[in-house]
Amino acid sequence: MSENPLGLPPPFDAMRSPFDELIGSEILSTDPDGARARIPMREQLSQPFGLMHGGVYSGAVEGLCSLATAIAVWGQGMVTLGQSINVNFVRPVTAGNADVRARARHRGRTTWIWAAEVLDDEERLCATATMTMAVRPRPEGAG
Amino acid sequence: MSENPLGLPPPFDAMRSPFDELIGSEILSTDPDGARARIPMREQLSQPFGLMHGGVYSGAVEGLCSLATAIAVWGQGMVTLGQSINVNFVRPVTAGNADVRARARHRGRTTWIWAAEVLDDEERLCATATMTMAVRPRPEGAG
Amino acid sequence: MSENPLGLPPPFDAMRSPFDELIGSEILSTDPDGARARIPMREQLSQPFGLMHGGVYSGAVEGLCSLATAIAVWGQGMVTLGQSINVNFVRPVTAGNADVRARARHRGRTTWIWAAEVLDDEERLCATATMTMAVRPRPEGAG
Amino acid sequence: MSENPLGLPPPFDAMRSPFDELIGSEILSTDPDGARARIPMREQLSQPFGLMHGGVYSGAVEGLCSLATAIAVWGQGMVTLGQSINVNFVRPVTAGNADVRARARHRGRTTWIWAAEVLDDEERLCATATMTMAVRPRPEGAG
Repeated sequence: MSENPLGLPPPFDAMRSPFDELIGSEILSTDPDGARARIPMREQLSQPFGLMHGGVYSGAVEGLCSLATAIAVWGQGMVTLGQSINVNFVRPVTAGNADVRARARHRGRTTWIWAAEVLDDEERLCATATMTMAVRPRPEGAG
Repeated sequence: MSENPLGLPPPFDAMRSPFDELIGSEILSTDPDGARARIPMREQLSQPFGLMHGGVYSGAVEGLCSLATAIAVWGQGMVTLGQSINVNFVRPVTAGNADVRARARHRGRTTWIWAAEVLDDEERLCATATMTMAVRPRPEGAG
Repeated sequence: MSENPLGLPPPFDAMRSPFDELIGSEILSTDPDGARARIPMREQLSQPFGLMHGGVYSGAVEGLCSLATAIAVWGQGMVTLGQSINVNFVRPVTAGNADVRARARHRGRTTWIWAAEVLDDEERLCATATMTMAVRPRPEGAG
Repeated sequence: MSENPLGLPPPFDAMRSPFDELIGSEILSTDPDGARARIPMREQLSQPFGLMHGGVYSGAVEGLCSLATAIAVWGQGMVTLGQSINVNFVRPVTAGNADVRARARHRGRTTWIWAAEVLDDEERLCATATMTMAVRPRPEGAG
């Protein structure tokens, strides 16, 4: 994200998320009505039987929802932290990309709730997820 | 795990989980009454503010519970797949280790349910998790 | 449901769910793409501060998704049982109706997953829920 | 609870929860290290096949954790509201009592997290649950 292809506002334009880079999650959109990320499958992301590890889904959903919430609430002097995640695994991804699509279903003063899905390249549902973000005032001096 | 320090039974002694290796999760015990794994914090596992990314917790819990269930049901001709995970984030890990401790609360014919916790080096609770594993007959030819 | 206004197929036309009757949940549709139920608020459904108790939401979501799944899989010789539910509470219902709307997001051989929402009379989101149903072969002699 | 057998502090001694009364949940202890409630099975609590409806479990867990949290935080000028619940159903209750046992696993400034189990009269595990309570300052004039 160092080249800021999404046109993120400061300070997010200069921000790196090392774990999202480690799993290779590419943020495509941070729009709360259609946030998206894509993770290309590779051998390092697999569990023992060659399927994409469920932890990759969880990590990608959390990274995407966290960034999208953070950008949306920053202007009101707020920061956000993941509070809980719930993932249901439906179908394995073995090749191609995992496509994460999330929509903010609730945008409250203290809590945001996201509904997310993970699809494969044939648009088949591979996982559903709910991500809850806590929203809190930005500490003095931050930003 | 290639040196099999846990004394895992075949075929698990020769098995690798590339994603668990990527995040650096070290399996310490696969006992259903006290399964444990440890993930040393390092910069690559962090989110933008230097905290261990929640996806690391989710991935480590899933990897641990999957392996421990697989070993336990293999002898009955069964295999297992993650069905759902629920994680509540309580406190960030910024240094040292994340210690994952899991206990099988239900060991059914078609479903196992694990209760897990993530603690830091001072034994403070950092996350709680519930992992549900589907248990199914081993496909012909497997193993 | 004794008069079968929904035109449910046997044996569901003659079936009663005492707990759904106790909370007053009225099934409006069992279509997996748009299942609906409505619970009129009344004093007996409240918690100490006069808000609709969260257990009413959970019960209504489970009752609706259970019936809709049961009807859909019965013809293939299958029955269904609730496996897990996850509910996020967003806004209280204090008067009028709680409107439960559910859609089957996954219809697998052994598992169905429903995404549900609870809305108030002004179409405001009051809760989101995910309901997982286990689907199993019908026992001999059933039905 | 009108006779206050638990010796609850004001204002909880005079408080009624109509829905908990409707399902017949009897609070036995509100100790955060061992909160308990019991629901005697009766026909009105069943789903179509005579099993205790999952909504009863959810409602009883939420009622118990809500009351126990409320009592614990009231003295610090705080109130609490249910934020989310996650229930895994393991075994049906068909007769006798459902025994709900809950323990506060996290008691934070803004969030409490409870781990709960539902057992039958033979001490068999029937459900596991996680309940998250939001804790907020008491509105002016309350109490």
